Amino acid sequence: MSKRKICAVVTARPSYSRIKTALLAIKNHPELELQLVVAGSALLGRYGNAVDFIEKDGFVVDEKVFMVLEGENKTAMAKTTGLGVMELANVFYKLKPDAVITIADRFETIATSIAAAYQNIPLIHIQGGEVTGNIDEKVRHANTKLADIHLVASEEAKERVIKLGEEPDFVINTGCPSIDLAKEIKENPKLTFNPLEKYGGVGANVDWQNKGYIVVMQHPVTTEYEAAKEDVLKTLEAVTELDIPTFWFWPNVDAGADGTSNGIRTFREINKPQNIHFFKNMEPQDFLKLLVNSKCLIGNSSVGIRECSYLGVPVVNIGTRQNRRQRGNNVVDVSYDKEGIKEAILNQIENTKISSSTIYGDGASGQKMADVLSKIPLKFHKTITY
Amino acid sequence: MSKRKICAVVTARPSYSRIKTALLAIKNHPELELQLVVAGSALLGRYGNAVDFIEKDGFVVDEKVFMVLEGENKTAMAKTTGLGVMELANVFYKLKPDAVITIADRFETIATSIAAAYQNIPLIHIQGGEVTGNIDEKVRHANTKLADIHLVASEEAKERVIKLGEEPDFVINTGCPSIDLAKEIKENPKLTFNPLEKYGGVGANVDWQNKGYIVVMQHPVTTEYEAAKEDVLKTLEAVTELDIPTFWFWPNVDAGADGTSNGIRTFREINKPQNIHFFKNMEPQDFLKLLVNSKCLIGNSSVGIRECSYLGVPVVNIGTRQNRRQRGNNVVDVSYDKEGIKEAILNQIENTKISSSTIYGDGASGQKMADVLSKIPLKFHKTITY
Amino acid sequence: MSKRKICAVVTARPSYSRIKTALLAIKNHPELELQLVVAGSALLGRYGNAVDFIEKDGFVVDEKVFMVLEGENKTAMAKTTGLGVMELANVFYKLKPDAVITIADRFETIATSIAAAYQNIPLIHIQGGEVTGNIDEKVRHANTKLADIHLVASEEAKERVIKLGEEPDFVINTGCPSIDLAKEIKENPKLTFNPLEKYGGVGANVDWQNKGYIVVMQHPVTTEYEAAKEDVLKTLEAVTELDIPTFWFWPNVDAGADGTSNGIRTFREINKPQNIHFFKNMEPQDFLKLLVNSKCLIGNSSVGIRECSYLGVPVVNIGTRQNRRQRGNNVVDVSYDKEGIKEAILNQIENTKISSSTIYGDGASGQKMADVLSKIPLKFHKTITY
Amino acid sequence: MSKRKICAVVTARPSYSRIKTALLAIKNHPELELQLVVAGSALLGRYGNAVDFIEKDGFVVDEKVFMVLEGENKTAMAKTTGLGVMELANVFYKLKPDAVITIADRFETIATSIAAAYQNIPLIHIQGGEVTGNIDEKVRHANTKLADIHLVASEEAKERVIKLGEEPDFVINTGCPSIDLAKEIKENPKLTFNPLEKYGGVGANVDWQNKGYIVVMQHPVTTEYEAAKEDVLKTLEAVTELDIPTFWFWPNVDAGADGTSNGIRTFREINKPQNIHFFKNMEPQDFLKLLVNSKCLIGNSSVGIRECSYLGVPVVNIGTRQNRRQRGNNVVDVSYDKEGIKEAILNQIENTKISSSTIYGDGASGQKMADVLSKIPLKFHKTITY
Repeated sequence: MSKRKICAVVTARPSYSRIKTALLAIKNHPELELQLVVAGSALLGRYGNAVDFIEKDGFVVDEKVFMVLEGENKTAMAKTTGLGVMELANVFYKLKPDAVITIADRFETIATSIAAAYQNIPLIHIQGGEVTGNIDEKVRHANTKLADIHLVASEEAKERVIKLGEEPDFVINTGCPSIDLAKEIKENPKLTFNPLEKYGGVGANVDWQNKGYIVVMQHPVTTEYEAAKEDVLKTLEAVTELDIPTFWFWPNVDAGADGTSNGIRTFREINKPQNIHFFKNMEPQDFLKLLVNSKCLIGNSSVGIRECSYLGVPVVNIGTRQNRRQRGNNVVDVSYDKEGIKEAILNQIENTKISSSTIYGDGASGQKMADVLSKIPLKFHKTITY
Repeated sequence: MSKRKICAVVTARPSYSRIKTALLAIKNHPELELQLVVAGSALLGRYGNAVDFIEKDGFVVDEKVFMVLEGENKTAMAKTTGLGVMELANVFYKLKPDAVITIADRFETIATSIAAAYQNIPLIHIQGGEVTGNIDEKVRHANTKLADIHLVASEEAKERVIKLGEEPDFVINTGCPSIDLAKEIKENPKLTFNPLEKYGGVGANVDWQNKGYIVVMQHPVTTEYEAAKEDVLKTLEAVTELDIPTFWFWPNVDAGADGTSNGIRTFREINKPQNIHFFKNMEPQDFLKLLVNSKCLIGNSSVGIRECSYLGVPVVNIGTRQNRRQRGNNVVDVSYDKEGIKEAILNQIENTKISSSTIYGDGASGQKMADVLSKIPLKFHKTITY
Repeated sequence: MSKRKICAVVTARPSYSRIKTALLAIKNHPELELQLVVAGSALLGRYGNAVDFIEKDGFVVDEKVFMVLEGENKTAMAKTTGLGVMELANVFYKLKPDAVITIADRFETIATSIAAAYQNIPLIHIQGGEVTGNIDEKVRHANTKLADIHLVASEEAKERVIKLGEEPDFVINTGCPSIDLAKEIKENPKLTFNPLEKYGGVGANVDWQNKGYIVVMQHPVTTEYEAAKEDVLKTLEAVTELDIPTFWFWPNVDAGADGTSNGIRTFREINKPQNIHFFKNMEPQDFLKLLVNSKCLIGNSSVGIRECSYLGVPVVNIGTRQNRRQRGNNVVDVSYDKEGIKEAILNQIENTKISSSTIYGDGASGQKMADVLSKIPLKFHKTITY
Repeated sequence: MSKRKICAVVTARPSYSRIKTALLAIKNHPELELQLVVAGSALLGRYGNAVDFIEKDGFVVDEKVFMVLEGENKTAMAKTTGLGVMELANVFYKLKPDAVITIADRFETIATSIAAAYQNIPLIHIQGGEVTGNIDEKVRHANTKLADIHLVASEEAKERVIKLGEEPDFVINTGCPSIDLAKEIKENPKLTFNPLEKYGGVGANVDWQNKGYIVVMQHPVTTEYEAAKEDVLKTLEAVTELDIPTFWFWPNVDAGADGTSNGIRTFREINKPQNIHFFKNMEPQDFLKLLVNSKCLIGNSSVGIRECSYLGVPVVNIGTRQNRRQRGNNVVDVSYDKEGIKEAILNQIENTKISSSTIYGDGASGQKMADVLSKIPLKFHKTITY
């Protein structure tokens, strides 16, 4: 019997952490064959060269798809997506997969969905059914409506996808593979590397070993593009004033990337903050190890909502980006306000009541996904249930 | 006060009938300004040159977008859509509309949706909430999830869009503008032209004036691509054997176009049917006049479900294409079976119990749409209601 | 030692005949490896499905590139070329050839040239240095200036390429592989098939076996687009009036295709010429066999200039398309004039003075090309010689 | 009589200086109408936002074309060009110019050429007939073969274009509009602004006012991509060791951009050179003023060959990028060698024998161009002269 060919499309660094253990489980499953496509910003040095980590993890990349159009505006984002549809249509025509995986809700993930659905290839959507704001909210639910099989990360998400008119037999709560990685880290939390030495980066040579440290990761919020620069300045000022050793991570790509990045760059040149060190990128496991040993994560990354809930790391979540995503008790929400951010950080780094949560999975999601994909009927035809 | 700029994208001949009276009402509304984009197959002679009818109706076309990629396969359909996203992103960047209209569920309509949504332009989706099968089912509901405002054609559709998690205040049942055209015809049903003289076409010089006639319009069903040719042959054989004067309309473009078209072409060359005359295209009003004076419409066109329900024209609906679309009592469904088709036609042309229905509108939908669009808050940010 | 990977891109039916024996010789050469890309109209049924012939000849197609944009205008031609650059850039990135072959002067061949040259892949141009009119004139010489190695078809062409500033060591007169095919036919000229039975087609059931026949192949002339329909009508009228059994071949794709095709279609429907049978396509060998047994070839195909000079078949060459291409004594030139065409045909079918010519090669060009490609230094850097 | 619509496509910052006075003269000419398209890197902040300078100079930009694909490789360069063809085909379809101007030899300029030539729009090529190495050498001469009218910058260039088979009547030596700008500066050379204050930038606060300064501008050499980083390090080391106040300009975009940029960025972080200040961009006039007051220009910019020959500024030209471009006596050539660069700079800043040259024009080129374009027959059909 021939193996089912499962083709996954990874378009960005953070998406890789969301799927890595599932890719491993598919690759090793006796009834499955993995086809791996790396596309978009995952191929670009400016956004952390995810492809290098992927290959280092032992994966063979079947196709690399260059599709990111430059331009500091939303038009470029739309055109990147259109180009992605064209390129991925070619890729699927050539690879002839039995099913295609599209991951979550980044703007370009709909390109994967269209290229597969329009060629009558069964489409598997990972991490549907969640709620945020902005364009990713639209993209996620549109992906759900284009997909045939839904592997969701929580019970709440499962219910929501079913409410959207999907057949319950094809909506499975596998949890999120990112929790699998968090579990490994939780079981072995010792920080075995010096981040400054291993990853270089720029900025102050902070004394993290003696004083402890906080971590910041703040992405631009697409529909508030113009304000991206201003928003990030609030956090920069708050963190600078607190004067706690800080590891700050560069944002990943989308239309506002340059707004946020410019904010950071300008602030650095002018203020030369003495307590912040900046990284462009870090291997996912190292990043989690850094987090589990940190005093607090600040920003608007979904890692704070998801992995940190399992790890029990305190989080100060800023702004609307993670609105309505289900939270553990590790998260405190604040708005773009310097004093509010400072106060929340000071509270969170003293917070002793945070417990570990399994709302996003128990650490075996990747294997569950592979098992589902080896057995579930593959179809590309559906009608709404109501 | 400046007028709201409403940009509508028409991508195919049948879509134009679904929006024409709304375009007129927008154009004439004191608080609205119409921006008209004609794209895809609506620009191509092979698919009936819809653009010519549009300009003849007095509309100024602001942009023409050539985006149809050749290829007798579904890959081309996907790539056409990707190219559409890129091209329409440019168009909206340039026209800077206050809102964009995407129509119904053809595969390329999602290009309009993405190009608008990704640029934070409020998106209005016309005719969401219906149910069919195939790829258009996926496209329609994905359009709903990308759109901010929903102008639906029936109460059933309204309820379904709300169930999909859209805010009720932004889901309005305006009915379908195609019924507006049907109303005009119903009020003045006399056939004032000779179709053979006015539209040429090819095939037999049928005696429609003395014997009456039936009309056939059968489109390929996308996900049953390979079977498209076989399917149409069943109808060709049934109609040829019945020997009733027949006006047959060429299918519109999608991946299976050449399957269906080849079927028709081959059948013609070999069988030279003496009771069938073939047309490539007809002005929408003339087509409706032809229908209202016909004995029966055969095929799988949505015109049979929609306009004919209002007009009270008997319909033999073949196959799955209109599955689960709400029907009046004018429709009988049959499968791809020569004898079944013949029998259904014979029954329907004697059917005297057909009444007119307003399930898809009462003939004033275009004006209702324009009125809604002049007043409704325009936003591009939404979250699911549950 | 690893073999040199030579990647040839075939974009149209007529191009295949121009390269076929070279492809065979490359495939069979101990120091070469053939990579074959089939693209553009060579993949489309509407233009003769060249890909089917290619695969039937035993070639493995490494990549198929769908890139033809629909539209009855020159904008579509330009956009097809642009899309071709994007697609072929991907293909070469993936195949990593040691050299790329671009063939002659069709509009889309410059896409191959750019995709190779811009990625620093040595570019081999076949059949540069000739002279015609129209856009192909510009394309051919631009290809020459983008290419590193030039395999030309005649001494005159060689001199011209050198005059264009190319290094003489990289300009080799191999002759044209199409003459290799002609040689096979000349050595075994018997018409072993019935064209009507083998190729179907449409139109009159002409009595070619008893009365002999002429062959017509007329392509649109790109820069005289509007006149394409009118031009072809002159030939149709002339041939109809002569009433000699005629095999007429459909034109291949470019912007004017529909002008010429519409002309033919309209003329057929109205005039139903009783002496013309129309073919869409024919295997190259069969086509040459048909030619060598014909009384005369009419139209503007380069086959008349090239293969027919070797075969000694009389040709009536109409219009400007082959202007300034070197001719044997088998060609008579006429303009778009019904009476002139008629007179020329009548003269040519009686012409007994035609000899065979080797100006375009002696029948061993394919092998010569492979031998050159196995030895010549591969470079992608050049500067003009003056 | 209606004005001739002349459409110029500016794709990069340096191209703008090469055409600016011609654009002004066209705009002001009574028989011409300027259509201005800004495309590619000219729209991007990363490459100096040329579009801002263009609009500040009073030009109305008719279309903005986003077409730069990200990717640190040559595949992206090719795909950018393909996308450019598609986009510019649309633009010309819409603007319907009477003639299109393509400028010089950047890789994406061939997109302009194809989009115009394929739509039968007369194509004017500026600055053909020069000789360099690398991909721009191929692009320039391919542009020549696609163009109908040639406005060249020197007598040598004129002869070369004619040798390429172009009709002498359509090859006109107008000189280069960049010399027009140089002339203005030469007539009024006083440095009226403080570059550090007006343009910010990063790096050392050099004492240019008292000690004088040198200027560096080094671009990556495309076909030596891998070496781009290494090459620039030689210059950085040489200049750092000389310890003369230095204004260093960021390279403009092409495939190697990130190689060179990375080299500069890394060197800065590690070595923190105390005599170098880095600028991203400068208004052309200000840049020329900076040059005319400098001790020497170092690098491989064509400004050194062209404007500096007229201005009489000493130049140390590094590497092969300007190979075979005609030089005045202001240029000394060196290879990528630290000691060689140092020595050449020290010699040049003492050189007193440099004279002004008019080989690239006398300062009235823009007006000459406009005059030619108002009178010359516009055609899109040509054949090679031999």
